[in-house]
Amino acid sequence: MSARVLLPWTDIDVPEGVEAAYYDGVAPPPDGLDGVEFYVLPYDRGAEPPKLIRELPALRVVQSLSAGVEALVPLLPDGVRLANGRGLHDLSVAEHALALIHAAQRDLPRWFAQQTRGEWTREHTRSLADSRVLLVGYGSIGQAIERQLVAAEAAVTRVASRARPESQVHGVDELPRLLPDADIVVLILPDTPSTRGLFDAKTLAALPDDALVVNVGRGTAVDTDALLAETRSGRLRAGLDVVDPEPLPSDHPLWTMPGVVITPHIAGGSASFYPRAKKLAAEQVRRYVAGEELLNLVER
Amino acid sequence: MSARVLLPWTDIDVPEGVEAAYYDGVAPPPDGLDGVEFYVLPYDRGAEPPKLIRELPALRVVQSLSAGVEALVPLLPDGVRLANGRGLHDLSVAEHALALIHAAQRDLPRWFAQQTRGEWTREHTRSLADSRVLLVGYGSIGQAIERQLVAAEAAVTRVASRARPESQVHGVDELPRLLPDADIVVLILPDTPSTRGLFDAKTLAALPDDALVVNVGRGTAVDTDALLAETRSGRLRAGLDVVDPEPLPSDHPLWTMPGVVITPHIAGGSASFYPRAKKLAAEQVRRYVAGEELLNLVER
Repeated sequence: MSARVLLPWTDIDVPEGVEAAYYDGVAPPPDGLDGVEFYVLPYDRGAEPPKLIRELPALRVVQSLSAGVEALVPLLPDGVRLANGRGLHDLSVAEHALALIHAAQRDLPRWFAQQTRGEWTREHTRSLADSRVLLVGYGSIGQAIERQLVAAEAAVTRVASRARPESQVHGVDELPRLLPDADIVVLILPDTPSTRGLFDAKTLAALPDDALVVNVGRGTAVDTDALLAETRSGRLRAGLDVVDPEPLPSDHPLWTMPGVVITPHIAGGSASFYPRAKKLAAEQVRRYVAGEELLNLVER
Repeated sequence: MSARVLLPWTDIDVPEGVEAAYYDGVAPPPDGLDGVEFYVLPYDRGAEPPKLIRELPALRVVQSLSAGVEALVPLLPDGVRLANGRGLHDLSVAEHALALIHAAQRDLPRWFAQQTRGEWTREHTRSLADSRVLLVGYGSIGQAIERQLVAAEAAVTRVASRARPESQVHGVDELPRLLPDADIVVLILPDTPSTRGLFDAKTLAALPDDALVVNVGRGTAVDTDALLAETRSGRLRAGLDVVDPEPLPSDHPLWTMPGVVITPHIAGGSASFYPRAKKLAAEQVRRYVAGEELLNLVER
């Protein structure tokens, strides 16, 4: 009997009687996939796993473990449904935002460089506590970041694409008024026509001296040349998990700007993601086999 | 008229009519200190400021801005009261503990080293979320750390010198049973005969493989040789703001152990400390002049 579900990990619970095959996105796919109806895409394994979608004649559902699935939609044959990984990465991204903020406020690159030289030179640093933080993007990740910032006794101001006064959420159109009072601005924005280049030279210029720009959404929200100018002069600082372009070329000047820390787009995939992803995959397969409604279906 | 109060910063509010002089602990003390009754010690300026205590004939109160004042007690003339800086550093130390945890879990030293080479190589990391954290030391700093850990969705277990079952606080005697289930152990312990060497080879051996030992209390709580052995083998990891000895000599092997991040005892003095310290100093001077009871008095 041919497998009915194709999974990226072997430790996902599937209902009794369901034949499962496994493809981790690194080794070649196994044989015997003609019967696969439900395909859980390997996470963050590049361009090969999506190509397999076209080679599964019985396919009915593609389950992505990413939140953003724009690139998959054109690959789907008619009648194949798509579910995304909304929420799986929230905590992972949120805690990485905190890691970048702490790294910048607490001068961690300096101490780690001193460590390589065996140097015990002390200096007091900035703090997160009492900082005024502007959260730009107030979905589930923004809310997870907010909880951690509030626990650290930072003062948070919420900004989203549209104002929601009943929840104290400001609209992006209020940024010019809000930016001058921000010590730290955290961007958690998707890549859309309206977010692209939102933080250009004019927007960045509205931030006070020494402000920290953190980006854990999409690199395109920040105009890289404008950020280069503001960090080269030492006026602004930055903590970036996403940049534009990605990967950042090895000779790009952003790598060496003072006060800039860069991680290579790894916010979403830390260890806490995996148990959540496996739980979602198991639940979706169970629902599929039982004929129940799937979670996280993407409108096409 | 000679100054009645001696302060480390010029922007501390003093009651009208009170003569203030200023000594930052770096430049030499000013003249005209014969009338000083209230001395707020400069923070973290080494051995010189305490020596001045003996040269102020009218002195009645010494206000330290540190939590630990054991070294000052022998310097106090009879009849001079001592107040400490309890609470001023809590948030600063707590957020530095979080910074060390994030640095270790999120492999920050690796990314910052890659940044110096312009290298965009990606790998998923450990996480703080879902980690099991043992807080050893459950005073005000431990509680501030706990709030931030809980917001990050880590699971916290509380340990203090004495068990307080009504607050779900375990006693240190329960450590042998608790350590095997800890992914991260955070030490926030003072230097006392009972804490010295508490984390020796036997205690460290009870931690599971890959556990992270974070120390933001006093370096003496950990047996450095035992920690060297456990980190040299790669079995344990560590994030240390305090070590034994301090300063750590430049040729000490701890600097280069894999999985060890070290900051040079800077947890307590970050920016959020200063406004709190100035507020306490102003309030204490006000109370002294008004003849009211002082805060944070230390029993001698």
